[in-house]
Amino acid sequence: MITLYDLKAKGPIGTWSPNPWKARYVLNYKKLPYRIIYTEFPDIEVVSKEAGIPPYGKKPDGVTPVYTSPAIIDDATGTALSDSYKIADYLDKAYPDTPKVFPTGSEALQAAFYAQFAPTLSALVPFVLPKVPAMLNERSAEYYVRTRAAIFGGKPLDQWELVGEERSEAWGKMKAGFDKLDGWLSKGSGPFFMGDVVTFADFVAAAALQGLKIIFGENSEEWKDITEWNNGRWDRLLKDLEEYAGVDVEN
Amino acid sequence: MITLYDLKAKGPIGTWSPNPWKARYVLNYKKLPYRIIYTEFPDIEVVSKEAGIPPYGKKPDGVTPVYTSPAIIDDATGTALSDSYKIADYLDKAYPDTPKVFPTGSEALQAAFYAQFAPTLSALVPFVLPKVPAMLNERSAEYYVRTRAAIFGGKPLDQWELVGEERSEAWGKMKAGFDKLDGWLSKGSGPFFMGDVVTFADFVAAAALQGLKIIFGENSEEWKDITEWNNGRWDRLLKDLEEYAGVDVEN
Repeated sequence: MITLYDLKAKGPIGTWSPNPWKARYVLNYKKLPYRIIYTEFPDIEVVSKEAGIPPYGKKPDGVTPVYTSPAIIDDATGTALSDSYKIADYLDKAYPDTPKVFPTGSEALQAAFYAQFAPTLSALVPFVLPKVPAMLNERSAEYYVRTRAAIFGGKPLDQWELVGEERSEAWGKMKAGFDKLDGWLSKGSGPFFMGDVVTFADFVAAAALQGLKIIFGENSEEWKDITEWNNGRWDRLLKDLEEYAGVDVEN
Repeated sequence: MITLYDLKAKGPIGTWSPNPWKARYVLNYKKLPYRIIYTEFPDIEVVSKEAGIPPYGKKPDGVTPVYTSPAIIDDATGTALSDSYKIADYLDKAYPDTPKVFPTGSEALQAAFYAQFAPTLSALVPFVLPKVPAMLNERSAEYYVRTRAAIFGGKPLDQWELVGEERSEAWGKMKAGFDKLDGWLSKGSGPFFMGDVVTFADFVAAAALQGLKIIFGENSEEWKDITEWNNGRWDRLLKDLEEYAGVDVEN
């Protein structure tokens, strides 16, 4: 049995964070059975250590380990690891009879795509991060607010909100990121990054979209905007991948 | 017949600029016959206009057209276009019986890779640009020095040379870019970006390497360094693609 470590949200909200979404998509796509453990932000480190999950990497000090979600433990192989990319890579290799999310021959280009994905959409940060605490239980919200302010130069999250022209301009930059993705996608025959084959690249984009949808709210102006960009490509992508979305809302 | 517009270098130096190298690799790979017209930098615009080649894009003023090399004219279809990426894409579509440099299904990921390639190796700029004028005839050299200074904040090219620790640090950044490429390549089974199939991504990397090799000089310390990075991957890539390199040195 595979255990997926996801992040715990408030009340009935299920998976909300783009990174665990990627792992969930991949597990569902491969039809691998798994159970989910939802963890509060301040507990990720202790839960990971107890479960024998190695750290994702190190803090900028080069010493302090960083533990993150998602992580998985696979009892069948005794493997424990974090990082959605590494998890996908592991599952491709450990379960060669399941459909590959990194089709043979595409691995290097998938890696290049993945390295560029977050920077391409970095303009979403000022819109998204301030809205995250409202989705979390109090302990996680407090932790999130404190640690994110520290990462982003000390500015408290509740002072991030942009208004007026500044907001329009920042939103335009966010759209420009999606335009870039759309430009790449338009080179192929679609609907997916590799044509009619679903791959990790699609789950990366869809996970970001799932995050935006739940963080902004399905009925928000922001989400409505996004669904109208690039000829409705983004909502369509979520629909095309819906069979692999399988959200467990009992957390 | 296809005509390739390349850049003219001094004396016996053939193709030296990475961008025309890409087009040349693609034409050779597809075994399409072509002739070459070598153009001096200050003549690119007038030669392009006379030949009916549309501009590559616009200057930052949003109005003035920019003409670049490489460009091709294909008499068979009456097509004239510039930009190595567009040329490759055109040739894939116009000559569907030749091997594709953008294999079906890889187009979007190739585009994502290509968008990231130059930024990944941007640390080569301070090493490479000051060495370019020495390879050009006087008119082109004067033009190059003048226009590059204008693009890069007015600093004359001959004042770009780094020394001592500053140079080591900048060289380390250049290596870090190659390490990144190597990291992506290492995800696949190699030797090429798509495994054992040659694609545009390989020509993009090889064209940059060809440029570095000729600009630094085959016997330079710099080129020796590069050939030793990443377990000799880069010189090996050039050798693996040698049959498509076909340099015409009579310019």
